[in-house]
Amino acid sequence: MKQVSASKAYEGVQHVYSHPSEACGGEMTFALYLPPQAEKSTVPLLWYLSGLTCTHQNVMDKGEYRRAASEHGVAIICPDTSPRGADVPDEKDNWQFGQGAGFYLDATQEPFSRHYNMRRYILSELTDLVAENFPVDMKRQGIFGHSMGGHGALTFALRNPDRFRSVSAFAPIVQPSTADWSRPAFEKYLGSDPANWREYDATNLIEGGSRISEILVDQGTADQFLDNGLRPWLLRDACQKAGIDLTLNMREGYDHSYNFISTFMADHIAWHAARLAA
Amino acid sequence: MKQVSASKAYEGVQHVYSHPSEACGGEMTFALYLPPQAEKSTVPLLWYLSGLTCTHQNVMDKGEYRRAASEHGVAIICPDTSPRGADVPDEKDNWQFGQGAGFYLDATQEPFSRHYNMRRYILSELTDLVAENFPVDMKRQGIFGHSMGGHGALTFALRNPDRFRSVSAFAPIVQPSTADWSRPAFEKYLGSDPANWREYDATNLIEGGSRISEILVDQGTADQFLDNGLRPWLLRDACQKAGIDLTLNMREGYDHSYNFISTFMADHIAWHAARLAA
Repeated sequence: MKQVSASKAYEGVQHVYSHPSEACGGEMTFALYLPPQAEKSTVPLLWYLSGLTCTHQNVMDKGEYRRAASEHGVAIICPDTSPRGADVPDEKDNWQFGQGAGFYLDATQEPFSRHYNMRRYILSELTDLVAENFPVDMKRQGIFGHSMGGHGALTFALRNPDRFRSVSAFAPIVQPSTADWSRPAFEKYLGSDPANWREYDATNLIEGGSRISEILVDQGTADQFLDNGLRPWLLRDACQKAGIDLTLNMREGYDHSYNFISTFMADHIAWHAARLAA
Repeated sequence: MKQVSASKAYEGVQHVYSHPSEACGGEMTFALYLPPQAEKSTVPLLWYLSGLTCTHQNVMDKGEYRRAASEHGVAIICPDTSPRGADVPDEKDNWQFGQGAGFYLDATQEPFSRHYNMRRYILSELTDLVAENFPVDMKRQGIFGHSMGGHGALTFALRNPDRFRSVSAFAPIVQPSTADWSRPAFEKYLGSDPANWREYDATNLIEGGSRISEILVDQGTADQFLDNGLRPWLLRDACQKAGIDLTLNMREGYDHSYNFISTFMADHIAWHAARLAA
């Protein structure tokens, strides 16, 4: 593991590290903010998964998470969104597939299965690395994310309810197996049989019996992807039937950008912190 | 004037506009955050001047100013740091001169004087444009900035005490006429006679009799430019002799980056807001 940078912020430290990854077949980079409380004891670990086209850096630059993380004493880790490198299969002109669009799944199809294993990377490899090297309490983990990363957070939490004690999302893709911008990627990564997509689809998982107690979602009403890509009402309906306590905040006039995310970032961190308190 | 973008943030709107500029001989871009209070009445206008290599966008992305601006009801305008365009003289490999390094002065030397007139651009042209088009109260203006932009804020305030009711800076270049990274630029923009640089040098201005009542400065102790470029003690000494009330906060372990700026951004905005209240 290599330290790329470290910079003091809100009395804590914003770190960036890179490390070789077996799951992604190459070097991966992640950001980790350690709040000042981490100097004296372990702190809860909150995972933030980013959306299409992002690296670890977008939310680090624009997410405005450090103030609330410092206040509540929560570490925030921000992984990249896909494997990276010249030897990683990609479609340069397609922002919805390939590098920057890993969709938090483990690909089964050639030539993608060699590198595109973001689920295994995050849930096993990066998890072990962080647990070994930093003062974080792995019994107190939460997860959230934006758009494609909201999809990642919801599906990871639904499949691992004993691991993640809290989950929330900004404008998540709640049913990627039927959304225009994700279905073609699922087909290429996972093959043409939709039965193999269900474990990567939050509403399908809930319909199939996966259960968590509660979910927080914020969604802007001026989001350009609301009707075609995001469709939070599908999650609302699934949660209602399943008895999952979904708080869905429709935010009047907000779009899909970090201006939306940053506005409600502190709310989400406070919500997680309350559920991750010792 | 063209609207480049508008995005809701913290109940206000983050705008970006571009417009033809006579002073800069070409198209210029600026960011303007209007807090929700601007929907019902005029609000104070706080100018943020950015540092070397920046455009209007760096602080918009990383400065974390919108939360405090929304809370206090202050508009924040972020101009670019130099003229832009293929026909603007530049030194591509020199980040301390040319595009991205306008130093908030009006150049007198050819070929720079045609475009490099950032003082006139900001204090006249952009000021008029903003006063005409937005619900801002021009009787309540404050100014702040970072590094080269801290120099800009201090010199603008010292020369225009009736216009700017408050001034602060993050890691300002307090004596650019003698600092390694600014002296060569002054020579090229203003000619070789140091007498012509004094009006663009905060400590020289104070020594020459310019007076304002108070200044707030935050400076990181781990700033890599502290000893050679910034040297806040020169400002402290000048203010002491002149009877100017300088609050100089040395911040242990903070560097020169936006992690430092964003950490103390809310303090600065609150400080300005208190002085810009009606």
